[in-house]
Amino acid sequence: MPNWKWLPVAYHGRASSIVVSGTEVRRPHGQIKPPGTSAPVFGPTKSLDYELEMAFLIGPGNSLGEPVAIDRAIDHIFGFVLMNDWSARDIQAWEYQPLGPFLAKNFCTSISPWVVTLEALEPFRKPLLPQDPEPLPYLRLTNDFTYDIHLEARLQTAKLNVPHITTRTNFQSLYWSISQQLAHHAVSGCNLQPGDLLASGTISGAAEESRGCMLELTWRGANPLKLPNGETRKWLEDGDELTITGWCEEDGYRVGFGEVAGRVLPPL
Amino acid sequence: MPNWKWLPVAYHGRASSIVVSGTEVRRPHGQIKPPGTSAPVFGPTKSLDYELEMAFLIGPGNSLGEPVAIDRAIDHIFGFVLMNDWSARDIQAWEYQPLGPFLAKNFCTSISPWVVTLEALEPFRKPLLPQDPEPLPYLRLTNDFTYDIHLEARLQTAKLNVPHITTRTNFQSLYWSISQQLAHHAVSGCNLQPGDLLASGTISGAAEESRGCMLELTWRGANPLKLPNGETRKWLEDGDELTITGWCEEDGYRVGFGEVAGRVLPPL
Repeated sequence: MPNWKWLPVAYHGRASSIVVSGTEVRRPHGQIKPPGTSAPVFGPTKSLDYELEMAFLIGPGNSLGEPVAIDRAIDHIFGFVLMNDWSARDIQAWEYQPLGPFLAKNFCTSISPWVVTLEALEPFRKPLLPQDPEPLPYLRLTNDFTYDIHLEARLQTAKLNVPHITTRTNFQSLYWSISQQLAHHAVSGCNLQPGDLLASGTISGAAEESRGCMLELTWRGANPLKLPNGETRKWLEDGDELTITGWCEEDGYRVGFGEVAGRVLPPL
Repeated sequence: MPNWKWLPVAYHGRASSIVVSGTEVRRPHGQIKPPGTSAPVFGPTKSLDYELEMAFLIGPGNSLGEPVAIDRAIDHIFGFVLMNDWSARDIQAWEYQPLGPFLAKNFCTSISPWVVTLEALEPFRKPLLPQDPEPLPYLRLTNDFTYDIHLEARLQTAKLNVPHITTRTNFQSLYWSISQQLAHHAVSGCNLQPGDLLASGTISGAAEESRGCMLELTWRGANPLKLPNGETRKWLEDGDELTITGWCEEDGYRVGFGEVAGRVLPPL
């Protein structure tokens, strides 16, 4: 989209359906419009997806009407968790115009149980990749930074002997920094509150194996994943378990994020 | 949009910036892309709008993964308030693809202070207008209903002697019923919780005077409103106060919703 390199495009998600790692996720129903048909049908999603993400929790908030300057944004962030933003792509495709995703994402969002503070991540700071065009002044931070966080998603099916790694990526691949994400969210005067969870969006890199969701990995189902035992996957199937892990490691010092795991239950 | 008559298109809004009637609303900043330019600019919105809406509060919720059948939806609704979903149209136009409105609406949402229960509205039930195409079964309710609620928006400027009524509309103009809105929201398994606020969207009717926002009243600024004292308005200006009122009345029995009012403060 033309706006993508100008602003960290975002939306408000659903808070009530955020669950902790280990909670099973029920395959959701919704309206789906098969290609070439004139009317939608109702049924369980046929394109259930994961999104490998991270998310940060707000510590101190800001008052309504008072934006957060980008050079103070980091002071409002308490720490990080891993996140799986489960998504139903067929429901999303039909509903998202013009108000964005709704049922496609509000049925479940999983996070890891431990919050890793920014202090623990200090040794793993890295410069943010150059941005072109230069961001507008309210998104411009001298020496803006990111973190070197290794991230993996692995898929366990009922038939696999060992889980298959579907995504290997790194937090540094994100275009927008966390300071930019926060400053943008609050620039309208929107008040952030302690405990608010701000998610990164899917973390994909340039390499093929670094794509953070099935939509990107399989080109919307056109190139199914081939698993080592001969199974294939366009999308997640009932009984599949998806686990995201993350860690930082440098000079023998390691910080782990644990994991966020969830198994897909058949539709009601 | 092609999906409009098939589903009550909705999005998740921001809860922290919901304020009670009388709270002043600060004109928000954001990115705006003037027509014909290659890059956006940053500044206060030039097209601040109101949206005349109503909203209902959830009473009993539902558990995650367990949808609410449409014939039980009404049991989950506690009551109604008036709502003004303040919107910045220029910010919205640039940001809303593909994830929906974000900064354009998260800076402030005003509601009336008193909740009118469904019991109080019983005498004012009316049949829902016919829907074509017939809704999918999960949105189909025998004898589905709405309410006869008169709604008005009035604008007070610094120079007007008396407020000018900009919108006269009725709750019955809504295409989707409240049962349909609730059943749709929960059909993915999304869990509603006590106190959740579900808004109707702008309530416009067929008549010119029944349009519930400046965007529709002025055709996106092309036909400015003419006020009785000669002033004109494409959008809301600093110092303008917008008030929404609503009431039911039949056979001498009247239920009032009070009002939701807010005055526009200049940008910081």
